[in-house]
Amino acid sequence: MNYPMGIKKTKTINHGNRGMSLEGAINETNEYYLANDIAVIHKKPTPVTITKVDFPSRRDAVIKEAYFKIPSTTDYNGIYKGRYIDFEAKETRLNFFPLANIHRHQIIHLKKIIENGGIGFLLIMFSKFDTIFLLDGEKLFNFLQEGKRKSIPYAFFEKEGYQIKEKYQPRIDYLEVVQKIYFKGEPV
Amino acid sequence: MNYPMGIKKTKTINHGNRGMSLEGAINETNEYYLANDIAVIHKKPTPVTITKVDFPSRRDAVIKEAYFKIPSTTDYNGIYKGRYIDFEAKETRLNFFPLANIHRHQIIHLKKIIENGGIGFLLIMFSKFDTIFLLDGEKLFNFLQEGKRKSIPYAFFEKEGYQIKEKYQPRIDYLEVVQKIYFKGEPV
Repeated sequence: MNYPMGIKKTKTINHGNRGMSLEGAINETNEYYLANDIAVIHKKPTPVTITKVDFPSRRDAVIKEAYFKIPSTTDYNGIYKGRYIDFEAKETRLNFFPLANIHRHQIIHLKKIIENGGIGFLLIMFSKFDTIFLLDGEKLFNFLQEGKRKSIPYAFFEKEGYQIKEKYQPRIDYLEVVQKIYFKGEPV
Repeated sequence: MNYPMGIKKTKTINHGNRGMSLEGAINETNEYYLANDIAVIHKKPTPVTITKVDFPSRRDAVIKEAYFKIPSTTDYNGIYKGRYIDFEAKETRLNFFPLANIHRHQIIHLKKIIENGGIGFLLIMFSKFDTIFLLDGEKLFNFLQEGKRKSIPYAFFEKEGYQIKEKYQPRIDYLEVVQKIYFKGEPV
């Protein structure tokens, strides 16, 4: 359980990626996809348990007490060219990706998605190197099966992942990579 | 903007459906689908803007102030037999469905989903009659285009919708109806 970590990821980081958080950049990218009729992909709201609400008037409800819940799914999902897309995005300042950053539930969720015919992956940003990689769900599962490691080394992403080059617009064009991997040979 | 209404829908209602809210019954149904490898469909968390968080310790973050946001998408989405599923669920005690209960953003969202090859619909529960109908997105759009009505009459659901009979398990087997409408002739 890493609630404070879950919050941290929404903070702006100052090095790399022009000062924007990964979440902010992905949201911007998704808005671009939506506005240009490319795909409909949204970030799910942060799951919270609301325990106290004040209603000073019918319109102005204020939540006075709530708690962060462990997410049971990934943060992002949607549809691209008729196919279901599902992914989790994380950033790290380290030169490896700590598996503690992903909840077991989220990995099980990605597995279920792929079993049901969806496209599932991770987007990992290494702020130290200013790089972002897409790692296919199956490759993640293979890595997890192979050993008891607590993190995925950077070299694994370089070898098995697909780097997403930052662009002006859309900022993090992950669907360009999705198109290459999952829609091989199909027209863009 | 109907924040308090947005909260109300999670309350338990006492007549019909054995005292369970529509949301509770759909969540139970989705758990059944998940556990039985039928589909992966989840309710999205209620969207809130968090403005104050207390951190008494690293593990115990408490949200002290937050506000309900207008949802920009529908509440439920997921994957069934490789296809993207998206819907909004609402209950009403009236003998018509007030369109004010659905945000404009949600209707636009459903439109985009269907344009991108997804399956989009409404699930409406009429607690007065203890009935639940699935209304296909296209039929909703046609209704909206035809006039300036502020509500959809019950008769429209009887004519254009598909009734979902309550069962013991899963409670609200909407995928049985989805199968009939959107997977015509395909094996179950």
